[in-house]
Amino acid sequence: MTDAYAAAGVDIDATNRAVERMKRLAAGTARPEVLAGIGPFAALWKLGAYREPVLVSSTDGVGTKVKLARVLDRYDTVGRDLVNHCVNDIFTAGAAPLFFLDYLANNGLSEDQKVAIVEGMAEACREAGCSLIGGETADMPGVYERGDFDIAGFIVGVCEREALLDGSRIRPGDALLALPSNGLHTNGYSLVRRIFQIAQGGAETEQHDREVLAQIVPGTDTSLGAALMVPHRGYLHELQPLLPRITALAHITGGGLYENVPRILPEGVAAEFERSSWDVPTLFRFIQRTGDVPEMEMFRTFNMGVGMVIAAAPEQCEPLLRALPGAWLVGAVIAAEPGTPRVLLR
Amino acid sequence: MTDAYAAAGVDIDATNRAVERMKRLAAGTARPEVLAGIGPFAALWKLGAYREPVLVSSTDGVGTKVKLARVLDRYDTVGRDLVNHCVNDIFTAGAAPLFFLDYLANNGLSEDQKVAIVEGMAEACREAGCSLIGGETADMPGVYERGDFDIAGFIVGVCEREALLDGSRIRPGDALLALPSNGLHTNGYSLVRRIFQIAQGGAETEQHDREVLAQIVPGTDTSLGAALMVPHRGYLHELQPLLPRITALAHITGGGLYENVPRILPEGVAAEFERSSWDVPTLFRFIQRTGDVPEMEMFRTFNMGVGMVIAAAPEQCEPLLRALPGAWLVGAVIAAEPGTPRVLLR
Repeated sequence: MTDAYAAAGVDIDATNRAVERMKRLAAGTARPEVLAGIGPFAALWKLGAYREPVLVSSTDGVGTKVKLARVLDRYDTVGRDLVNHCVNDIFTAGAAPLFFLDYLANNGLSEDQKVAIVEGMAEACREAGCSLIGGETADMPGVYERGDFDIAGFIVGVCEREALLDGSRIRPGDALLALPSNGLHTNGYSLVRRIFQIAQGGAETEQHDREVLAQIVPGTDTSLGAALMVPHRGYLHELQPLLPRITALAHITGGGLYENVPRILPEGVAAEFERSSWDVPTLFRFIQRTGDVPEMEMFRTFNMGVGMVIAAAPEQCEPLLRALPGAWLVGAVIAAEPGTPRVLLR
Repeated sequence: MTDAYAAAGVDIDATNRAVERMKRLAAGTARPEVLAGIGPFAALWKLGAYREPVLVSSTDGVGTKVKLARVLDRYDTVGRDLVNHCVNDIFTAGAAPLFFLDYLANNGLSEDQKVAIVEGMAEACREAGCSLIGGETADMPGVYERGDFDIAGFIVGVCEREALLDGSRIRPGDALLALPSNGLHTNGYSLVRRIFQIAQGGAETEQHDREVLAQIVPGTDTSLGAALMVPHRGYLHELQPLLPRITALAHITGGGLYENVPRILPEGVAAEFERSSWDVPTLFRFIQRTGDVPEMEMFRTFNMGVGMVIAAAPEQCEPLLRALPGAWLVGAVIAAEPGTPRVLLR
């Protein structure tokens, strides 16, 4: 029946088998709010009782980290990257996640590879307490090179309006705390690929790519490949109980501290970071040395070891540091004239 | 500052300009429920008053229709395809759309091309009365060939629980009505590309592709390219006032009548379609002749002129046909033993 379509590069039977397995993975994440068995063209979620519910949503990808997944033949972690990135994003507004949907486009991934990707999503969803309720698997010969794929995630959470985190309450003198990242998270991979001349596309370079990625990051016992593939850290569980003590949160993704922190700052203030308060992790310094990348560009591209910045009133600083192992006081909010830099590293 | 990243194939400045223009397009779709200025890492939507709200969500792409957009240098319509596909999907549950987010991944699209894509989304969102509240633009050198792109859409709507459409109420004797499609909508493009040997990837074939797509579809005054690019029709506005008369809706996408109609059928019934009740549009017959595609496979791949199937109690048939110009009685629900075919074309 699907012979002609299969010749066009679309194996509908294998796709259908993958979809059935993905559905079972998704079912394992279902909270009672998921209405199953109705609405077959859409996913249904019965919203609980809220006084003034605000739906908080976000969409994201994992950038070209998907290329490394392909080269390293590791398909079980990028789904976790995707979910954690999305969960962190909506949590910066104070929202708890409700449900997640995924888009997986590919050319010629095997049934098992597709399922491994979604398995990573399902695990991370379960850990974040949200339900994987829908998705689209698109076989796209001709758009992606054979063996390539891309993923996008979409998340919806909810928050009472009065409990929304709001950067407008940030004041000069507020403390800035940092929570460590555990790697590049999901940003800067195109630059890393260029610096190490890896995963540029084309199957012929895969042997070279694997050799480069097998080298040990100096000063660590981890291969470059393993260090680059560490899944994006999720901050939901450690921060959620502390929300009443937090004024605002900045998730440090593409653009680093320079581009992400200003997003939460009101007019008239700037964020001053104390560079000596932390050691930039070895992985970033190895990338920098190898590519001879200027310090400023490193901080504009990578998280440099800071995954989340917390703004809090000065009196919340000590309780937060006690409750958050690994967190440190990274800087302070200062008054600033309009037109002056919003982020200072000193 | 971004020199090294630009050399890696990512022009952050052009991307930022595109994002600013997209934000303005999105702002033009904002309903009062959009909470602007807070939650900079996520989109915020203040849900109105509902007794028992059910959130209805879906994600989709437009398949390899993106390849035709590239070859034909038409970037203003695929966004409309994406939104209408998503709106139709959640409307099958009876849900009115609230908000939409998009994911746009590409390698080397110009600022204007990116903006044209999102402009199509914004227009279709405005027409459907939903707000484009978020999106992610990913520059992905090495994953996509230069000039290639992909888009995915995420939609959330809402419906009172008691008003959800539910196929379980379908009974033998119910009428099946059809609403016409206006083309392939967003499915079957990989097969079409193989049959006509177009848009297979690689810039060197673009002249050939354009010549093939410039031919007039026999029996029409439309070029093949124009016929293939007609945006996915949206059914929200014509069907919404008629919801009280409708039992269930099946959106006919990939898999055609054979795979989409069974999704709404309860146990013990089948859908019998009267093939003589409509003429399959010329475009599908031209594709079929050119590719020598068996009839059965055509119906399993394309919508064949049927964009939406409405199941309704017999007494609703006449009022629905009066209210829906272009709709026709396409078949009926019949009793069926378990294990027998769920869709019959006769």
